[in-house]
Amino acid sequence: MHIDLNSDLGESLGAWTMGDDAAMLSIVSSANVACGFHAGDAAGILKTLRAAAERGVAVGAHVAYPDLAGFGRRNMDVASADLQADVVYQIGALQGLAKVAGTRVRYVKPHGALYNTIAHDRRQAGDVIAAIRAIDPTLVLVALAGAPLVAWAREAGLTVVAEAFADRAYTPEGTLVSRREPGSVLHDPDAVAARMLRLAQEGVVEAIDGSTVRVQADSICVHGDSPGAVAMARQVRAVLEHAGVAVQAFAA
Amino acid sequence: MHIDLNSDLGESLGAWTMGDDAAMLSIVSSANVACGFHAGDAAGILKTLRAAAERGVAVGAHVAYPDLAGFGRRNMDVASADLQADVVYQIGALQGLAKVAGTRVRYVKPHGALYNTIAHDRRQAGDVIAAIRAIDPTLVLVALAGAPLVAWAREAGLTVVAEAFADRAYTPEGTLVSRREPGSVLHDPDAVAARMLRLAQEGVVEAIDGSTVRVQADSICVHGDSPGAVAMARQVRAVLEHAGVAVQAFAA
Amino acid sequence: MHIDLNSDLGESLGAWTMGDDAAMLSIVSSANVACGFHAGDAAGILKTLRAAAERGVAVGAHVAYPDLAGFGRRNMDVASADLQADVVYQIGALQGLAKVAGTRVRYVKPHGALYNTIAHDRRQAGDVIAAIRAIDPTLVLVALAGAPLVAWAREAGLTVVAEAFADRAYTPEGTLVSRREPGSVLHDPDAVAARMLRLAQEGVVEAIDGSTVRVQADSICVHGDSPGAVAMARQVRAVLEHAGVAVQAFAA
Amino acid sequence: MHIDLNSDLGESLGAWTMGDDAAMLSIVSSANVACGFHAGDAAGILKTLRAAAERGVAVGAHVAYPDLAGFGRRNMDVASADLQADVVYQIGALQGLAKVAGTRVRYVKPHGALYNTIAHDRRQAGDVIAAIRAIDPTLVLVALAGAPLVAWAREAGLTVVAEAFADRAYTPEGTLVSRREPGSVLHDPDAVAARMLRLAQEGVVEAIDGSTVRVQADSICVHGDSPGAVAMARQVRAVLEHAGVAVQAFAA
Repeated sequence: MHIDLNSDLGESLGAWTMGDDAAMLSIVSSANVACGFHAGDAAGILKTLRAAAERGVAVGAHVAYPDLAGFGRRNMDVASADLQADVVYQIGALQGLAKVAGTRVRYVKPHGALYNTIAHDRRQAGDVIAAIRAIDPTLVLVALAGAPLVAWAREAGLTVVAEAFADRAYTPEGTLVSRREPGSVLHDPDAVAARMLRLAQEGVVEAIDGSTVRVQADSICVHGDSPGAVAMARQVRAVLEHAGVAVQAFAA
Repeated sequence: MHIDLNSDLGESLGAWTMGDDAAMLSIVSSANVACGFHAGDAAGILKTLRAAAERGVAVGAHVAYPDLAGFGRRNMDVASADLQADVVYQIGALQGLAKVAGTRVRYVKPHGALYNTIAHDRRQAGDVIAAIRAIDPTLVLVALAGAPLVAWAREAGLTVVAEAFADRAYTPEGTLVSRREPGSVLHDPDAVAARMLRLAQEGVVEAIDGSTVRVQADSICVHGDSPGAVAMARQVRAVLEHAGVAVQAFAA
Repeated sequence: MHIDLNSDLGESLGAWTMGDDAAMLSIVSSANVACGFHAGDAAGILKTLRAAAERGVAVGAHVAYPDLAGFGRRNMDVASADLQADVVYQIGALQGLAKVAGTRVRYVKPHGALYNTIAHDRRQAGDVIAAIRAIDPTLVLVALAGAPLVAWAREAGLTVVAEAFADRAYTPEGTLVSRREPGSVLHDPDAVAARMLRLAQEGVVEAIDGSTVRVQADSICVHGDSPGAVAMARQVRAVLEHAGVAVQAFAA
Repeated sequence: MHIDLNSDLGESLGAWTMGDDAAMLSIVSSANVACGFHAGDAAGILKTLRAAAERGVAVGAHVAYPDLAGFGRRNMDVASADLQADVVYQIGALQGLAKVAGTRVRYVKPHGALYNTIAHDRRQAGDVIAAIRAIDPTLVLVALAGAPLVAWAREAGLTVVAEAFADRAYTPEGTLVSRREPGSVLHDPDAVAARMLRLAQEGVVEAIDGSTVRVQADSICVHGDSPGAVAMARQVRAVLEHAGVAVQAFAA
């Protein structure tokens, strides 16, 4: 029995530091590494890739809209030709750096607003899928469990890994409770870890209304942008391993 | 008997157009394609790469300092870790786009201020050489004929192609006359073409003082940033071919 | 009898040229000058401002989303705190350059996607209005004739100048025919000039269905991004003046 | 008896935080506020300006080379027309935001590589001086005590405030010991505070060789980029005030 833990890394920029990549690389099995469009400068990305390679952590391209000021969190209406080429550019850049670091890019996980948009927007989803297929159809796409994107990408021939979010509440339909709703973000590390153990073992989580909902996920996204987040991620891993669920990359 | 003609392409940016890539791809054998740091957006770069692939024109990475506002023409004191990673990032991005376009990156030609600096600056030269060796040691480096860089890169194990500039005057020592000097830039297409023919056939050019100087070059850089420049490039090719000198990529 | 002609200027960027600012400054009475977010670098903006000052052409701040790659034409979901501050930043930067050029910023005309969005989006419209009021409530806002923005801004205390587009077809309701519809963009300089004369004299245009529709506009937007566009703008001015309609800035 | 304390603020960027502006605004009398070229986004700058206005801290424009990735610390060979316009653009942008925040820009302090370059480079110094004179000749220039820039700017008619660096060692000639030399940066808050008190009272510091050297400075630069730096700045202020030296802005 096993599951993947993934987290966003390589998000520092020049003089600005974000997150604790060293700590997270000792917790996760897969690293979503920034590609320079929402975060990350080449030297910082390379450093993170080298650390991931040393740790044996799998590397994915965390592709995003071109928006440093907004950290890739703002919806942008990018035309198909631009979006496809931007995704290829970012994957290619990360592949180059990964090669130098002694590793390689195994998957693609879109970031922020792009992630949320393509979960349900067919046009932009199609662009990201086309870009991945064009540069390397063996790259795995990490997508929100339960989103239409999962089926669209599989129909197009991509391997898709669905992911759950450790610290988010779910609706009875198995989708994420909006961040604008009360109770949407969970803060208790023990409760979060117990939920993720149940997800790994039974494929279900308790929804916000107390009902039990099926969530088909082979990876769990954990965050590392604060000391508390790192501690929660560590707790999730510890509880999983203690129960005999191995934490390992889907794309090993 | 043959020689390579190279030119800077893919330098449009979003709504801004630069040069006539279609015209130049019918003239040159090698295309130095912008990588997004001094010019070029991903979709525009991809379009140029596709056109180069259709034409059978060899593709090189035209890597630069990160300076869109200055078009990569301003000297920048970039630290080694940054410069090396920036060069890898750009080559990788172009490799990704080239793969999608059905071609591949065969060489690296630094652009603008980076080109001029590494011609003689050992530290930055070493950084560019290290970056190329790290991502793909079979990539050819295009460098200024007669510059110290040529030997440095060869000593480091890279294949180097030295290039001459069609429209520039040479000193009796075989280096370029500074652009600040009168007569440094040549404007007569016939004279330029005749000079390049002599270079290809005899390995010499007439220096600015009338003496004859040896210039060891396997490629000739021509420009396409104005209708006059395109016409001059076309004339160079026509004169070379008429005299039986084939125009073909060094990296075919 | 008089009307204003405005056009987008200062949109070159470093080595990239766009439009013919010198030509357009001899035609228009108001110059919408880029502020560096969608186009324009400081030195190029300053040059355009100096030329506008010499010509006695009024200057407006052509504020935009932060999107050089997309030329400010892509919708972006910018949060209120960012949008307000971004608009103030751009107006302030242009005010500084205008002072050095011997002129001053008299109005604000949002650009591209921001222009289209705030025409009808109350939240973003409110942000732009708040930004203008905060930095200088005497700045005039140029807005699409007939759009809800006109009333919103006036209710907030701003002076608003409504504008028509010389080369665009109108619906019977007085709104622009979408660019996706056939016939939405007009190409005959004589027809366009005649339409604009009728607009200036009678306050009406012929709609795409042949009906006559009232368009209340005190300014006409003309383009200068191609030789044909410059010729059309020149024709509009000539026809207006020949008929005794003075072309003069609303904000003189 | 009084002296000014200044520090670099407003250097966060979107999702990236730098320094503790709130803490530093309770210590310094002058805030060098980033203008978006080396750091700072408009909304973050505005927030810092509002806090400075509430605290009664004087505001200066911390103008820089256009280099977010390098944090403005890399030498760039920017042409005069560009450098002058870039400085005006940044001052203007900050003036606009300052007006909205209820304060105004009183001085200019160049940042990083620009600061170091213009201390002794006559061409770039002349460009910065010309830019300041063009937008507002009453703006004070903050410059390195003992540098040629001080005299150049005064000769050009600007008011100059010379500054010392609290945590830096001085040569017997009164210049800063290079950061590459051992002992160039001081770490003991008590020793630093005592040195700055002597500077304020007697106009001298002890040089690295033990000799006493005159340093004519009306402002002291303190840093706030780490908890230790904030504590040192607080100690400098406490020691000054305890000895009866008032901390107040030169440009009040």
